[in-house]
Amino acid sequence: MLNYQLDKTFAALADPARRAIVERLVSGPASVSELARPLPMSLPAVMLHLKVLEDSGLVRSQKQGRVRTCRIEPQMLSQAEVWIAERRRMWEANLDRLGAFLDETEEKA
Amino acid sequence: MLNYQLDKTFAALADPARRAIVERLVSGPASVSELARPLPMSLPAVMLHLKVLEDSGLVRSQKQGRVRTCRIEPQMLSQAEVWIAERRRMWEANLDRLGAFLDETEEKA
Repeated sequence: MLNYQLDKTFAALADPARRAIVERLVSGPASVSELARPLPMSLPAVMLHLKVLEDSGLVRSQKQGRVRTCRIEPQMLSQAEVWIAERRRMWEANLDRLGAFLDETEEKA
Repeated sequence: MLNYQLDKTFAALADPARRAIVERLVSGPASVSELARPLPMSLPAVMLHLKVLEDSGLVRSQKQGRVRTCRIEPQMLSQAEVWIAERRRMWEANLDRLGAFLDETEEKA
């Protein structure tokens, strides 16, 4: 389940327009037309990107009257961050072990 | 340039087999056959995933004799982590500002 979510989260982040939308939404909710304004594409194209972001769980939206407001869903962003951070820590721990091993070998020599 | 790299990094991470390869490589270099062993797929399928990982810059490989050894390229992992971490911080800062505003409004009331 988590794996499947990570697939969708990372795939959603693999596009500059979708990252621009996330970037806008971390500073607060926005309507679809506010999100579309700075993007160099048609409104339907923006809506397709929003659909990918909603399917990934990174963004949720709610319609009130004629305005659809989008918000960031920070847990999904955190899950992706945690996955990468843990792998970086594993890599650093491995480097430390290698360093300690080399120091020890040097002392013995 | 950075944007284009992030596209490739996030796209490379959007697959469980490729994440499993990254997960193995953070604990040290491995040969292609070592990487393939635990994965439920053919060697050519693993090599296609490795190609995506190499194109993204997350992994590099070197052939010595008949053995191709793969290593993680930690900067790429860090770039993706930094991108997400910055957006999370922006989101938290925005929450803090909202909290401060609500506190102030309450005091005035």
